[in-house]
Amino acid sequence: MAKIKENPCTDECPVKRAMDILDGKWTILIIRDLLSGKKRFGELRYSLGEISPKVLTQRLKELEEKGLILKTIYPVLPPKVEYELTEEGQQLRAVIESLAAWGSHLSAR
Amino acid sequence: MAKIKENPCTDECPVKRAMDILDGKWTILIIRDLLSGKKRFGELRYSLGEISPKVLTQRLKELEEKGLILKTIYPVLPPKVEYELTEEGQQLRAVIESLAAWGSHLSAR
Repeated sequence: MAKIKENPCTDECPVKRAMDILDGKWTILIIRDLLSGKKRFGELRYSLGEISPKVLTQRLKELEEKGLILKTIYPVLPPKVEYELTEEGQQLRAVIESLAAWGSHLSAR
Repeated sequence: MAKIKENPCTDECPVKRAMDILDGKWTILIIRDLLSGKKRFGELRYSLGEISPKVLTQRLKELEEKGLILKTIYPVLPPKVEYELTEEGQQLRAVIESLAAWGSHLSAR
C-alpha cells in the first residue's frame, strides 16, 4: 500500500495525481459500471439515471483520452459502440471496492 | 469488502452513496491532509496550494455538516481554529490509501 505523504499536497502526491484524473462523481460511477464488463452508451445512461447524454459523452471522451477506457465502434448498421475498461482502468477496482465498503457502512447509520 | 452491485446505479449503490458525499477533488485531498492529524485553516490552505480560501471554507463546512470533520474553536486571542477527522472521516483511510496506490502506479508510466 502506498504511503500517504505528509504535507504539502504537491503534484508528487499520488492522491492528488489520482484525483486529477478521477475528479467528479460521474467518473467514478462510470468506472464502477464498467467493472462488471463492456457496456453500450444506452446501458451506461440507464444505469447512471440522472446523467445527461451530453455529460456522459464528455466524461467517456475524457476517460478514453486518459487511457482508462476503450471505445469500440463496430462496423454494423445500426452503429454499435461499446465501452470497456483498459488494464489501467481495471486497476481502479480496489479504489471502487474501498468506496463501496465505506458507502455500505454509511447506510448502517 | 463490499460487493460491487450490477446495474443500475441507484441510491442503494454504496459507491454512489459514497460519491454523493465525496464529490469533488478537494474533498478527498482535504481528508488526505487530515489523516496525518489536526490542521489549522492556514496549514490546509498551504498544503492544498491551488485552492481559494473561499472554496476551502465551503468544503470544510460541507465536510463538517456531513459529519466527516470536527471543527474546534479555541477561546484564545488571536482565535485558533483546528480541523480534525471524526471517526467516520478516519474510516476513509482505506479509500485514500487505495487512491494513493493507484496514483503511485500512474507515475511509473
